[in-house]
Amino acid sequence: MEFMMKSIGVIHTPFIDKKQTPIQPTRSQASGYVEVYPIFTKGLQDLEGFSHIILLYIFHQSDSYTLRVKPFLDDQLRGLFATRHPCRPNPIGLSIVRLLACRGNILDIEGVDMLDGTPLLDIKPYVPDFDVHTDVKTGWYARRRKE
Amino acid sequence: MEFMMKSIGVIHTPFIDKKQTPIQPTRSQASGYVEVYPIFTKGLQDLEGFSHIILLYIFHQSDSYTLRVKPFLDDQLRGLFATRHPCRPNPIGLSIVRLLACRGNILDIEGVDMLDGTPLLDIKPYVPDFDVHTDVKTGWYARRRKE
Repeated sequence: MEFMMKSIGVIHTPFIDKKQTPIQPTRSQASGYVEVYPIFTKGLQDLEGFSHIILLYIFHQSDSYTLRVKPFLDDQLRGLFATRHPCRPNPIGLSIVRLLACRGNILDIEGVDMLDGTPLLDIKPYVPDFDVHTDVKTGWYARRRKE
Repeated sequence: MEFMMKSIGVIHTPFIDKKQTPIQPTRSQASGYVEVYPIFTKGLQDLEGFSHIILLYIFHQSDSYTLRVKPFLDDQLRGLFATRHPCRPNPIGLSIVRLLACRGNILDIEGVDMLDGTPLLDIKPYVPDFDVHTDVKTGWYARRRKE
């Protein structure tokens, strides 16, 4: 089944080169901003009360995917869906970033890990009651996290 | 900018009626399973080591959106992007569920909060190093969470 998505804005970051882009928000101190297209501004109301937001976006410079990939944090091939690799059948990126300020249709954010000009698909509030899980096992990543 | 997405599988759950569907995985004890289309099975390797996975999917029964909505957990209109409401410009759902077992192209999961037959877009491993944030403020939701 096919679904057409349209960008609702653009994410602006300091990163124009894939190789210099942090691999995850938690490994990034960089700031940037989300430019939401003005027709959606009204949908940003009440967002400023949240300290963190979930951004869903397009990995717009991702290449074609393969089902086994070498993650940035590993040296072995892994199943693609057991990784956060950007080249995926549906190249949707997910980053949880800190929301610093809302200025009309502009959201100032911190902890950006995406390329400048990334097309935005959705913004959701980050809610620990929904999004934080404890007693979690992390497979291959567990052996890599301390490196 | 437009992007074409194709489902990579189907999520099977006990829920055929929107009104009886839990509003979030953390409020659901229900089990279900993800049927990934067999051509993607190889991409599921190494996933079984993870206890939780992030599912991105289509809210396939969502209606047209409005930019201010009344969240299920609130009695006031809120900006759409400050809610997890299913009717969105790009109706992408995000649920973190417990992965119980991997059986070929079938993933047994717990904590389902989506309708039966939901088209799957992506699976990502849930990694606390990336996905858990503390010292979080949750805006309007903070006043509702204890109810």
